[in-house]
Amino acid sequence: MKILVVNPNTTVSMTHKIAKAARAVARPDTEIVTTNPSKGPASIQGFLDAATCVPGLLEEVARHPDADAIVIACFDDTGLDAVRMSVSVPVLGIGEAGYHAASMIANKFSVITTLSRSVPGLENNLMRYGLAQKCVAVRATDIPVLKLEEGDPATMLKIRSEIRETIEQDKAEAIVLGCAGMADLMAELSEEFGLPVIDGVAAGVTFAEALVNNKLSTSKIGAYSSA
Amino acid sequence: MKILVVNPNTTVSMTHKIAKAARAVARPDTEIVTTNPSKGPASIQGFLDAATCVPGLLEEVARHPDADAIVIACFDDTGLDAVRMSVSVPVLGIGEAGYHAASMIANKFSVITTLSRSVPGLENNLMRYGLAQKCVAVRATDIPVLKLEEGDPATMLKIRSEIRETIEQDKAEAIVLGCAGMADLMAELSEEFGLPVIDGVAAGVTFAEALVNNKLSTSKIGAYSSA
Amino acid sequence: MKILVVNPNTTVSMTHKIAKAARAVARPDTEIVTTNPSKGPASIQGFLDAATCVPGLLEEVARHPDADAIVIACFDDTGLDAVRMSVSVPVLGIGEAGYHAASMIANKFSVITTLSRSVPGLENNLMRYGLAQKCVAVRATDIPVLKLEEGDPATMLKIRSEIRETIEQDKAEAIVLGCAGMADLMAELSEEFGLPVIDGVAAGVTFAEALVNNKLSTSKIGAYSSA
Amino acid sequence: MKILVVNPNTTVSMTHKIAKAARAVARPDTEIVTTNPSKGPASIQGFLDAATCVPGLLEEVARHPDADAIVIACFDDTGLDAVRMSVSVPVLGIGEAGYHAASMIANKFSVITTLSRSVPGLENNLMRYGLAQKCVAVRATDIPVLKLEEGDPATMLKIRSEIRETIEQDKAEAIVLGCAGMADLMAELSEEFGLPVIDGVAAGVTFAEALVNNKLSTSKIGAYSSA
Amino acid sequence: MKILVVNPNTTVSMTHKIAKAARAVARPDTEIVTTNPSKGPASIQGFLDAATCVPGLLEEVARHPDADAIVIACFDDTGLDAVRMSVSVPVLGIGEAGYHAASMIANKFSVITTLSRSVPGLENNLMRYGLAQKCVAVRATDIPVLKLEEGDPATMLKIRSEIRETIEQDKAEAIVLGCAGMADLMAELSEEFGLPVIDGVAAGVTFAEALVNNKLSTSKIGAYSSA
Amino acid sequence: MKILVVNPNTTVSMTHKIAKAARAVARPDTEIVTTNPSKGPASIQGFLDAATCVPGLLEEVARHPDADAIVIACFDDTGLDAVRMSVSVPVLGIGEAGYHAASMIANKFSVITTLSRSVPGLENNLMRYGLAQKCVAVRATDIPVLKLEEGDPATMLKIRSEIRETIEQDKAEAIVLGCAGMADLMAELSEEFGLPVIDGVAAGVTFAEALVNNKLSTSKIGAYSSA
Repeated sequence: MKILVVNPNTTVSMTHKIAKAARAVARPDTEIVTTNPSKGPASIQGFLDAATCVPGLLEEVARHPDADAIVIACFDDTGLDAVRMSVSVPVLGIGEAGYHAASMIANKFSVITTLSRSVPGLENNLMRYGLAQKCVAVRATDIPVLKLEEGDPATMLKIRSEIRETIEQDKAEAIVLGCAGMADLMAELSEEFGLPVIDGVAAGVTFAEALVNNKLSTSKIGAYSSA
Repeated sequence: MKILVVNPNTTVSMTHKIAKAARAVARPDTEIVTTNPSKGPASIQGFLDAATCVPGLLEEVARHPDADAIVIACFDDTGLDAVRMSVSVPVLGIGEAGYHAASMIANKFSVITTLSRSVPGLENNLMRYGLAQKCVAVRATDIPVLKLEEGDPATMLKIRSEIRETIEQDKAEAIVLGCAGMADLMAELSEEFGLPVIDGVAAGVTFAEALVNNKLSTSKIGAYSSA
Repeated sequence: MKILVVNPNTTVSMTHKIAKAARAVARPDTEIVTTNPSKGPASIQGFLDAATCVPGLLEEVARHPDADAIVIACFDDTGLDAVRMSVSVPVLGIGEAGYHAASMIANKFSVITTLSRSVPGLENNLMRYGLAQKCVAVRATDIPVLKLEEGDPATMLKIRSEIRETIEQDKAEAIVLGCAGMADLMAELSEEFGLPVIDGVAAGVTFAEALVNNKLSTSKIGAYSSA
Repeated sequence: MKILVVNPNTTVSMTHKIAKAARAVARPDTEIVTTNPSKGPASIQGFLDAATCVPGLLEEVARHPDADAIVIACFDDTGLDAVRMSVSVPVLGIGEAGYHAASMIANKFSVITTLSRSVPGLENNLMRYGLAQKCVAVRATDIPVLKLEEGDPATMLKIRSEIRETIEQDKAEAIVLGCAGMADLMAELSEEFGLPVIDGVAAGVTFAEALVNNKLSTSKIGAYSSA
Repeated sequence: MKILVVNPNTTVSMTHKIAKAARAVARPDTEIVTTNPSKGPASIQGFLDAATCVPGLLEEVARHPDADAIVIACFDDTGLDAVRMSVSVPVLGIGEAGYHAASMIANKFSVITTLSRSVPGLENNLMRYGLAQKCVAVRATDIPVLKLEEGDPATMLKIRSEIRETIEQDKAEAIVLGCAGMADLMAELSEEFGLPVIDGVAAGVTFAEALVNNKLSTSKIGAYSSA
Repeated sequence: MKILVVNPNTTVSMTHKIAKAARAVARPDTEIVTTNPSKGPASIQGFLDAATCVPGLLEEVARHPDADAIVIACFDDTGLDAVRMSVSVPVLGIGEAGYHAASMIANKFSVITTLSRSVPGLENNLMRYGLAQKCVAVRATDIPVLKLEEGDPATMLKIRSEIRETIEQDKAEAIVLGCAGMADLMAELSEEFGLPVIDGVAAGVTFAEALVNNKLSTSKIGAYSSA
């Protein structure tokens, strides 16, 4: 099967990192196609970026009509409803996929994301998906998305500090890493803190495989009907 | 990988049907092991059966310590928390898996189950998982679980009638079949009604594969800590 | 004061109708400026239209930096968060304004909108605003937005029938007309059914006046911070 | 139009302060009539005061049958439902008005009120209005209502300290001042803390103007039917 | 122990009926004292009556300072918070008591009350107590409270019809009779419909006995603190 | 009447303590019968113990068919639904009884329990009963159940410290002691902290008496139907 993984921002280095995370978990017979728009915001930080990247995202989706499933590789799940309306294959956001995965292996989870400005959008999504009640905290590190690309040691210190605090104070039992740019940290942090650390890209790709294998596609009755 | 699929009731013909549904979606390199307790209720219909089958379920789980993931093939997700506490691999109930799958491909879904007596237990589960808000109705056909095994045409008429009504009256966009014994009806009903029809056994097996591939296991901090 | 009322679709006749509704309630010293994008969907019906009209909406907003308040004249409140992030003056969606007005004069209200496909988006908004619990039903007439422009008698029959049913069956105490294209029906239907009938355009303009008069502007801490 | 603003306690100096706040935002052609009962509690602090002031409040309302709208100038919104039942014009509580205003300009808000004893009543109101989910905290300064009248510098220090904490700890994006006696502090605190600070009296008066201008009145079907 | 049962309306025949219901369940060593205000509404039907009867209710409570517990015998639980603030003994509303009793013996219950106008107040109470989620319907018979006193056969037909419908349509498992004036119907209807039928007066008196026997009194920290 | 109080664990000394607490509040004419299974977990700490003790609990219930009511004396309310399905008399869990009692005498309450591992089960129960919204915190002392039997002074220090913190930080107005093994501490702690401290065993016994006196039994329609 072919899974299209769209990074909705224009930062190619993030698309590469996403591709690597996607391929690390995909089945041998799954083809991972990654792409990003050529125009639009360089990172998705808050409601304005989330809205303005959607036309580019829809264009990339339209360019790949043979995809068997689509993963939107932005933790805000930006454009998720619009993409679902424009195709009939399964569509997953990586935030959504991460929350579902966390709900299957822990009673309560936390999200560690980038800027404070992004927190309300994630909280809205959690409420819409019904999974807000499984999430004890959405915490911001206040590290900009693109800073994650630079590999600054201070960045990792801040992420570690938030994980430690959310385990102790919020009683989190699992962590969802709230940015596609954190995809490479999953194994290391899980080992270090002794609890599941979830990357939405990996979760999204494997759940997409699962849905395709179930021969399930996006419902075309009601909310996502195209006619 | 090896996935243990436990039918928590003692009806071997259901275990066979579950095995067939599980193998139909599993990857070629996934080994599906199915089992059921030798003692306990012949079907799980309501809170009393759900409680009394748990010791047998736990015994079957203990007999397969090499499983990479466990699927509890009863739509009540009976014993889910107890099994999670007793192992560290991922554990999925087929009700839980069906609700998550439905939430990924439709805005709202309905559940069609067997007896009215089973409805409150399913509603409680949906509330706990947070997914009650995605579920517009849990409808009972009032067909006993074991009656499903007999292939009576009246049974299918009743299931069809409930699906038709929940699409029209409740605005369901997808259907979750609320009993392991309905696993073989999925494709046929989906075709007929033009919307996704989800079988929890298939969803559970593929999500278990996904979680294992993500190297995720049940959190051992908090609710499911064993020490 | 100057209030910018943006119709986010490209149908000029709807913009005229909106302008009329806005001016009918505005204070004498309030200047109402109406506009619509030149490119984008002709009507907003569902998630895809709601996403694709946003760039045009943002452009119109950017063209009027001297507005003291902004009203987004689409009942889906499309782009509301993105617009709030891009300006500091108060921004109101007409769906949002209608729900708040209804909550102030009735214990429970209903929404009568156009297509079934638009219902989930409105329900999501109501949930986000917290006002879902005041709303007993969002009912679709299944009349396309642009059909409302044509003045077909069958259209009015359908709207009346839904209002009658929601009063009797859902115990609605007030009605919010769920489309900017229904703005001219408010007085007539209110008289006929003996209960408040609310037009979001009128509510939005007068609440915008109220916020400006309170010297209140969109918070720039947190969700809508621009930096 | 004529707006009746009733202070439901018997403290005339508070009525004067309320009148000043009301007139500061009212349109030139709006007549503000303020009054208070001659008998009843001197301040409304908790459930007992809130209940015992209602007969006096209803008497004041009955004395002004020509009012076009009524504002109940107590942050507990005491007697709101009863007054709505006894008249047909719009009726707003200043707590209610403040919460709606805050919801229109911020994603999340906090309330700063007087005594801890008053907090549960405000929380109940927020739950009933549906706006509890927009409110991150109701904080008490533990300054009695009438102490606010005295202009003690310690009072202002305590209010400032609570505002600072709720911005930092609760991530409040706007503040609703939870007592009619704080009406004069709005502009100063907003400037100082760089976020919207809302006075319910001002919000109530301008929303009342808006509702009257929309020709909306209290629904007489259902909860507020008088017959 | 002495339990004061206050009928907050002025209809003495209802007080007598309440007294009979209270004494029928009270322990031999429990003294039941019943009373009603001499001034105020003759029945409590909606928010206005509920507010205006409170001063009379508080006077009756103040006249019996030696009561070990207080039961407010109006299904609206009118004045409950105010009475709790004015005494330290346990205080129960009969609506509240009925809902708690129903929650202990059934998964879901319905309320059958008098006028439609009273429904919103009951729904608000259920929401505040947290028990709304256990209640599948609050149904009005549209029989005025005082009409119940007359023993009209049509009255009983209407009550029976609503019970039948709520069992079939709402899946109610128990019925709470939503008016002190229905107290004498409990046994007969329970027998007839084969499910628990709960009278709030009886529930209130026995729960009051239970709380006194537990040596529990109303908390004087927080919401009900009197100082 | 005869009330069967079942300790679902096998620790006889806890059964004795429970019997003492039950008899201290029961009426003179109530016969308290206490028992515990001979096989199963020695204490109920988390989901696994809660599941494995149920068969023994059901056996003890079946051995006493003449009981007029049943109290399950484990704060997890383990097996509550199953027992309700197997009998027709009223059945109360001591957690459930404690939460209902607290809701009747305080606006908000806290629970102080034993291990952190038990907290999620209690939170799930509170959500199911609807009473989560009345509960501001479930706090663990991290003292194992059986440790409570030993009378270690450090145990009491820890319980006191949690009570103090929950009053100050969570604004608890009443405390529910979250373990049958704490039953003897109720009076002492209530006196010391000046707020109601509730023992579920005592609450359960007196509410059972109340339900029996109301001639109420478990509904046999719907969730708890036995056929």
